[in-house]
Amino acid sequence: MARPNNDNFLRALLREPVDHTPVWLMRQAGRYLPEYNETRRRAGNFLNLCKSPTLACEVTLQPLARYKLDAAILFSDILTIPDAMGLGLYFAEGEGPKFERPLREEWAIRDLSVPDPYDHLRYVMDAVVEIRRALDNSVPLIGFSGSPFTLACYMVEGGSSSDHRAIKTMLYERPDLLHHILDINAQAVTAYLNAQIESGVQAVQIFDTWGGSLSHRAFREFSLAYIQRIVSGLHKTWDGERIPCIVFTKGGGQWLDAMAEIGCDALGLDWTTSLGEARRRVGHKVALQGNLDPMALFASPDAIVAEATRVLEDYASGAPMDAPAGSPMTGHVFNLGHGISQFTPPEHVNALIEAVHAFRA
Amino acid sequence: MARPNNDNFLRALLREPVDHTPVWLMRQAGRYLPEYNETRRRAGNFLNLCKSPTLACEVTLQPLARYKLDAAILFSDILTIPDAMGLGLYFAEGEGPKFERPLREEWAIRDLSVPDPYDHLRYVMDAVVEIRRALDNSVPLIGFSGSPFTLACYMVEGGSSSDHRAIKTMLYERPDLLHHILDINAQAVTAYLNAQIESGVQAVQIFDTWGGSLSHRAFREFSLAYIQRIVSGLHKTWDGERIPCIVFTKGGGQWLDAMAEIGCDALGLDWTTSLGEARRRVGHKVALQGNLDPMALFASPDAIVAEATRVLEDYASGAPMDAPAGSPMTGHVFNLGHGISQFTPPEHVNALIEAVHAFRA
Repeated sequence: MARPNNDNFLRALLREPVDHTPVWLMRQAGRYLPEYNETRRRAGNFLNLCKSPTLACEVTLQPLARYKLDAAILFSDILTIPDAMGLGLYFAEGEGPKFERPLREEWAIRDLSVPDPYDHLRYVMDAVVEIRRALDNSVPLIGFSGSPFTLACYMVEGGSSSDHRAIKTMLYERPDLLHHILDINAQAVTAYLNAQIESGVQAVQIFDTWGGSLSHRAFREFSLAYIQRIVSGLHKTWDGERIPCIVFTKGGGQWLDAMAEIGCDALGLDWTTSLGEARRRVGHKVALQGNLDPMALFASPDAIVAEATRVLEDYASGAPMDAPAGSPMTGHVFNLGHGISQFTPPEHVNALIEAVHAFRA
Repeated sequence: MARPNNDNFLRALLREPVDHTPVWLMRQAGRYLPEYNETRRRAGNFLNLCKSPTLACEVTLQPLARYKLDAAILFSDILTIPDAMGLGLYFAEGEGPKFERPLREEWAIRDLSVPDPYDHLRYVMDAVVEIRRALDNSVPLIGFSGSPFTLACYMVEGGSSSDHRAIKTMLYERPDLLHHILDINAQAVTAYLNAQIESGVQAVQIFDTWGGSLSHRAFREFSLAYIQRIVSGLHKTWDGERIPCIVFTKGGGQWLDAMAEIGCDALGLDWTTSLGEARRRVGHKVALQGNLDPMALFASPDAIVAEATRVLEDYASGAPMDAPAGSPMTGHVFNLGHGISQFTPPEHVNALIEAVHAFRA
């Protein structure tokens, strides 16, 4: 296996020199694109779309046909693992994901087991193979999973929650039960991401969407510790190539020092953290990904370019004093600080990508 | 005017020695109390409750009858100011606050003016006078307001919002318009809080509920700068007593250093920040308020006591090395990291308050 023709994304994650700052967007294959909505309509519903390798491949490639993105990301849902565990994932119209059988009873928690990714999650691996074939080594393919705590939030709450009352009651009252769920989830995510790597993904990202809702102490015990276990268990190389791992905790800006110690290659940041300050704190240990406010894409192209340039300059400002010439951009993957909004005007994304590629520190 | 009989709350804010760590709870007069729901039912609706000084006084005192709280907080709504500006506040059942006339047009923004707190907001001042009389100098009364940016969120969005799309589009595309709104809001909040002080409140808190949704740069420009203007314009003393000011930005833990410079007496923290670390960073400049996760109150009393003790010990751990004996608790007001949940079992609150009062570092 060789590196893709455009490997700036992988090089940035490994803090090697780059031709330009690479860029991809969380949720880049999504509802803001009319062609995505058309494919989804054909699929009948969102779960069919996720579970059809051919359609998942089709939507994965859609944003790359429109924009000069430096990476593709596997189109899938964050909740495939608990679905494979038998919790019965479904989508109520306009309400987000739900589970038919949320984890509310101790017996159900004790009954959980790690799904074989080549059995219940075969459709994901098939999609990876199909996407890699279609990409034809143009750009790298990113695999992903939710973090153990983020998966547990949905599994215990039974869907989205504004206060995470059910899982936090468990956390404070029965931490042993939550640790049991997280232990199973960590094993499941490790096996799932390793199967994605074996199937062809060239980097992985762990989405810790809800870790930021925890107290500073609980974050370390109930989220970060399990992410660390996954990172230690992942294939570090496959077919002779390094497989970098990105960890993104939404709202995790206060905890970067701890996060930079767990052995991952890069940290994703939301827009509340200065990339320059983060680089000064942890840039000698990890690459950084982020962090434009997705709402900036609702402004005019000129304003978008100005705001993107501020993000790029902020990162460059954190370069070490003794850095060699040309290195201010090294170690930065440009992204939004969260998924792109479904209401984003698609033509605004072009302005962003061009600004990132044109930037020189 | 003399200090109240129990002035531990005021002393903690001014970093003077205390008998015990004082405690109050954000939203302590609220829906988790059956007596509150009964008064609200009698009022007919929430706005009537806010606008009746007698009923507002009644619910302000309810939690103090149940619990040994160290402060009362004026019962009112965060959106009284935009209501007084003529935006037409109303509450749709189960949907939170809404405005009949959100700020969507430039002419409406240019038309905004600062309401006279003794005219349109007279009912709030009357409530303050009535509550002070009823408290009979037992504990201090806290006044409050939303921050200029937090008020603007509701004024521009027209209600609650999960992504703040409307106000952020304005922020990135027409920052001049947003600055105009914030300028008017800052003047209005200053006049409103000063009128509360003149009417009898003994400390004030600025609730910057949505400042944490901003980027690190936008927070300084669009939220903190206006809070600073308010703090500079507040009465520092009234009737010979210092009037301390607390600033609480939910999600502001990364920005404490900047926040500690604006001249307020205390910063409120949510549960994502370690009080010990915060004290080491800014404890020589400001007192700190917080920061138990409100969801901890759903655990058993034993677990609540354990978690509250961890918060108290965390604060004590940040004491300077050269601190005199007995000082580890100085400068801490115990609180939740956010408002108490309406689903909290009221009897659990007793366990919390007793644990805080019994604590000795």
